[in-house]
Amino acid sequence: MKIYSKISDIQYYLPPKLLSNEDLVFDNPDWRMDDIEKKTGIKYRYICEDAQTSKDIALLACEKIFNSNVRRSDIDFLIVVTESPEYIAPAMSCDLQNILGLKTSIASFDVNLGCSGFVYGLMIADSILCSNNYSNGLLVCVDTYSKYISSNDRTCRPLFSDAASATLITASKKKTVGPFVLGTDGSGYKDLMVKNSGTIKNIDTERNLYFMNGSAVFMFTMRVVPKAVNDLLIKEKCNTEDIDLFVFHQASKLVIDNLKRLLKLSNEKVFENYQLVGNTVSSSIPIALSQAKSAKKIKKGSVVMLVGFGVGLSWGATIIRYN
Amino acid sequence: MKIYSKISDIQYYLPPKLLSNEDLVFDNPDWRMDDIEKKTGIKYRYICEDAQTSKDIALLACEKIFNSNVRRSDIDFLIVVTESPEYIAPAMSCDLQNILGLKTSIASFDVNLGCSGFVYGLMIADSILCSNNYSNGLLVCVDTYSKYISSNDRTCRPLFSDAASATLITASKKKTVGPFVLGTDGSGYKDLMVKNSGTIKNIDTERNLYFMNGSAVFMFTMRVVPKAVNDLLIKEKCNTEDIDLFVFHQASKLVIDNLKRLLKLSNEKVFENYQLVGNTVSSSIPIALSQAKSAKKIKKGSVVMLVGFGVGLSWGATIIRYN
Repeated sequence: MKIYSKISDIQYYLPPKLLSNEDLVFDNPDWRMDDIEKKTGIKYRYICEDAQTSKDIALLACEKIFNSNVRRSDIDFLIVVTESPEYIAPAMSCDLQNILGLKTSIASFDVNLGCSGFVYGLMIADSILCSNNYSNGLLVCVDTYSKYISSNDRTCRPLFSDAASATLITASKKKTVGPFVLGTDGSGYKDLMVKNSGTIKNIDTERNLYFMNGSAVFMFTMRVVPKAVNDLLIKEKCNTEDIDLFVFHQASKLVIDNLKRLLKLSNEKVFENYQLVGNTVSSSIPIALSQAKSAKKIKKGSVVMLVGFGVGLSWGATIIRYN
Repeated sequence: MKIYSKISDIQYYLPPKLLSNEDLVFDNPDWRMDDIEKKTGIKYRYICEDAQTSKDIALLACEKIFNSNVRRSDIDFLIVVTESPEYIAPAMSCDLQNILGLKTSIASFDVNLGCSGFVYGLMIADSILCSNNYSNGLLVCVDTYSKYISSNDRTCRPLFSDAASATLITASKKKTVGPFVLGTDGSGYKDLMVKNSGTIKNIDTERNLYFMNGSAVFMFTMRVVPKAVNDLLIKEKCNTEDIDLFVFHQASKLVIDNLKRLLKLSNEKVFENYQLVGNTVSSSIPIALSQAKSAKKIKKGSVVMLVGFGVGLSWGATIIRYN
């Protein structure tokens, strides 16, 4: 019998330290915070303590999964999507296997992607679960971009929150995930990057490792995301009326508002939580899904489109059916 | 119709700079090179020039794929397995998409694994190809560990070569890849690692970033690899006589000799190329497969078992049928 996959739980963790717009102005008296907030729409960001790493917060998100409906020994594979691992090697997933007390017969690996990472991770998890007849996979998304961003980076600091999410993917008799539209345009490789890292070593003494060409990334998003949405609708032979809710990567107000405009989507059809959560990179879609479910915007029977886009440059869209 | 996958081409690139045992003694007059060579069995390593990066050599391996039997526009997804990317972000695969001139509608991502990486990459590629009805995937393995290893590191420097490989995975009517036995034991997380990297920043001024606890990794290998081989034989309902050739990760003479001894395998059944190639991390199995085919040790009809193991700690085994 052919096996499909479904999302059966999403848990997340936001670190307790809140960074308000007032805090940003305190550090940078010359910033016109009203102008910045008009564009970003973001009022608060969640920031890790200095000693708190991506692994620490990933662990806390995963533990919530085991508080609910699955045992540790039920997990067959573990995928961690991150661009801010504690170390380049080994993979964080290997460390988590041990700390979480998962069995040693699991497949574990890390995937290096940013804001498109949840959709890619879901495609990879769905493919592995279905092809290998697995029962349960854990998809962890985690980033701590705050550790890369200097206190006076006006492009990035107002946007990004640190966050971790854990998504439980389980075997299903019905198809609930997919199809997928995925893409890559490496010509924008340098528009979003962690500089002076990897084996190119020219380490700054300042903690200013993250670079974003904001306008280039905005133009890229407006060029590829509406096309990806339309390509996916064609692939699924449906139209926007058949989709109950659109969950875009929560990049910023400017991005979400313009996507709504270009795609002619009403406010009711588009979930937003960037205002109080910030841009949480690859955790942004799973956190939004979790909050949309709590807010009853996703119910049994809902058809939801997910669209992630960012560093790479890379994008991915898919449809989830809540049966 | 159910689709399977097959390996339809393997190409690789070794950088031109050769490092001999004499070169190592020249740098380290106190090393007893005869004793070291008795354990490693390795006579030469291939080392990148200072300015030559993992992306540079990955590119050269990939270009050889397009010299033969596939067009750039035929590639549907690109996976890069690496632990020595130029940058932490974006993923190298995104950059390669653009430099190689692949279409923008491909899925691209990097996987962070070491010496188990080819088997994991093959499992991921096989799953994605089969689940998404893709025609062609490119699996790139590349590492430049020499950039992490200091000139006086006696444990690591005699072992590792820099290398890149590109493996073309295509749709097949017959099942030729799998099943898989995969495992993770993060309790050995610190036995093999790239220190002072990622977001844990305490950068040495010396280029001494790679750490291996040689005896711990050896003990791990002897504990998990024979069990993985036997588990896979049971899963496939066959025994060692049914396997024409074993291709282990080319860790060292000590490791390969002891695996042969524990598994009671004859020399004819075990492919070896570490002597002249060194330990090329995740490229070690694809380079061995390519050389075994050139040496006619793999022919049409051959059944080959692949076993990778290393950093994580992580391991993976699978069976390939050359139809």
